[in-house]
Amino acid sequence: MPSRANPAEVIAAAAAAIAPPAATAAAEARSRQDRLTKPPGALGRLEELAVRIAGMRGCARPRLEQRLVVVAAADHGVAARGVSAYPPEVTAQMVANFLAGGAAINVLADHAGARVRVVDAGVLSPLDPPSGRSGGAQLARLDLPRGSGDITEGPAMSRETAERAIVAGIALVEEERAGPGLDIVGCGEMGIGNSTAAAALIAAATGRPPEAVTGRGSGVEGAALRAKIGAIEAALAVNRPDRGDGVALLAALGGHEIGVLAGVYLGAAVARIPAVMDGLISGAAALVAATIAPGVRDYIVASHRSPEPGHAAALEALEAEPLLDLGMRLGEGSGAALGISLCVAACRVLDEMATFGEAGVSDAPQQG
Amino acid sequence: MPSRANPAEVIAAAAAAIAPPAATAAAEARSRQDRLTKPPGALGRLEELAVRIAGMRGCARPRLEQRLVVVAAADHGVAARGVSAYPPEVTAQMVANFLAGGAAINVLADHAGARVRVVDAGVLSPLDPPSGRSGGAQLARLDLPRGSGDITEGPAMSRETAERAIVAGIALVEEERAGPGLDIVGCGEMGIGNSTAAAALIAAATGRPPEAVTGRGSGVEGAALRAKIGAIEAALAVNRPDRGDGVALLAALGGHEIGVLAGVYLGAAVARIPAVMDGLISGAAALVAATIAPGVRDYIVASHRSPEPGHAAALEALEAEPLLDLGMRLGEGSGAALGISLCVAACRVLDEMATFGEAGVSDAPQQG
Repeated sequence: MPSRANPAEVIAAAAAAIAPPAATAAAEARSRQDRLTKPPGALGRLEELAVRIAGMRGCARPRLEQRLVVVAAADHGVAARGVSAYPPEVTAQMVANFLAGGAAINVLADHAGARVRVVDAGVLSPLDPPSGRSGGAQLARLDLPRGSGDITEGPAMSRETAERAIVAGIALVEEERAGPGLDIVGCGEMGIGNSTAAAALIAAATGRPPEAVTGRGSGVEGAALRAKIGAIEAALAVNRPDRGDGVALLAALGGHEIGVLAGVYLGAAVARIPAVMDGLISGAAALVAATIAPGVRDYIVASHRSPEPGHAAALEALEAEPLLDLGMRLGEGSGAALGISLCVAACRVLDEMATFGEAGVSDAPQQG
Repeated sequence: MPSRANPAEVIAAAAAAIAPPAATAAAEARSRQDRLTKPPGALGRLEELAVRIAGMRGCARPRLEQRLVVVAAADHGVAARGVSAYPPEVTAQMVANFLAGGAAINVLADHAGARVRVVDAGVLSPLDPPSGRSGGAQLARLDLPRGSGDITEGPAMSRETAERAIVAGIALVEEERAGPGLDIVGCGEMGIGNSTAAAALIAAATGRPPEAVTGRGSGVEGAALRAKIGAIEAALAVNRPDRGDGVALLAALGGHEIGVLAGVYLGAAVARIPAVMDGLISGAAALVAATIAPGVRDYIVASHRSPEPGHAAALEALEAEPLLDLGMRLGEGSGAALGISLCVAACRVLDEMATFGEAGVSDAPQQG
């Protein structure tokens, strides 16, 4: 895809390029699972996970060596509505924390053997350093407006900006593949106010009422939680996006970082790479991507179940069953990093264990 | 504890030496969690886990550098009753597989950065190599009878053998601490027939009926599953152990490897080391240890929920909530290895993340 192409055309080309997982590779992986020195199925969902990834990668013994967590960050006009427990400047402060290596995602990505790439998709406050590699993570700054519009008053962004955000995510996957290589990618984010945008997107995409998909986010309760639900109701009343049009959903209810992640999901599916979903905001981005191209779902691994009610709605809409349920609600890709570690464990088992024949272990006699 | 002491005295001394977790260290860890750059509680059970481990270790920022998975192996007289999908010689064949590095636990322990130590606690077939380090894991051979008695006809072992098995587990923890050091230990096992012994132990210890705690084990169904339940009913009728006496439970319904693991749980609690429980058999050993010394529970981390019904009963009796629920039912310590990885992640987050002050991030204003 030429980088100068019209963004809408790039997105359409990506959606058209997504192929279903390879049934042959998945079947070979399943057959190998059943010859490994364990009772068939005894490793439960680890076995299914490795077989799924074999299908995605088109390889019966996939190796997940190049691992990345993308942390897309942006500010939100709706943050002015008192929907978060934290002030908007925390977005930029946390980006600086990611770059310095002090955030949860730095620790958890390192634990999973994954690099972190921070994408400034529209952070309001100036970031220092503006680009390049620092102690903890690499920063990429996108040419997008600084912050999205207040969705209680109008759209988050123009359709063209939404398309450019998505294309940036697609391009990021391509760049990583062409550079260090990429075998698995986790989708994380940061943005004060973005649990409001994500819940609004999920309400619009699934048709559920705002109160059913709105949670405490970074920690609001009482009057602040009611204000958050009210903001989402207003956003849905003011913006009435076509729920079958993923780009329209994103433009209406936004979050530039949600758009970038939607592009990462699309790009990963094109490249046959597992995209590991994190919590609420990552789930909203996955819904946007799956609305644009339903085949994206085949390349999503749901890492964990967030206590956010909107996350459950997104998981259901995506027909995804998460691997972990640890009450995590941080975002940043923190759950995705743990999910990457489980994917690596699952693929290593498939690749490295001995078969009954190799180990000289008696297999179970067939039962009648 | 002198190694020549009477085994019963060694066990009593260990039980008496178990101290509760350090409340001060746990409180310091909790206080630090709340100053780290994330909303309080946003990492869910990872936060609780690190705080618990801080209390165990008596250290506000515990580091889990020396990690071990013990895989205790033994044969079972009850295997002759057709209770397993696999023939008894598979115990020795799988031990050879552990030593060669071809089993699931080799891969998953390596993934968690943990060594594997295989303990021959009474394997019937000769093992080659008999001791020392091989490609995949280190073997220790205990001076215990080769295989336990058929529990449908009498006790699994004498009370003295039961005590010696437990003392061997206690000694193993001491040896690891004195040698490479030990910060966390996973409790795994291998033994054809041992899901029958474990279910019998759990039925006896909890008072539940055999059919409520008996599952498919390595894969029995239909007539074989009914034979397994019948064997457990016979074992409970023939052996009527005092359910308040952990050594008596072990001697009656056995498994030498279950005794060794019970000793590992006791030794870990004495040494203030988290002991990571695996599935059904590991859970039965934890119940034996907790029956001997209830304080053991404070040092148990339940790694995963097995589909075996007896495992749920053991978890309930131990008041333990597992971290993972992936349908794993292999044993070997496979779930414990994944649990160790989560413990490491949790403690690294607690130790390595920046605080709001260090990172210059604005904390949330207190809500009214």
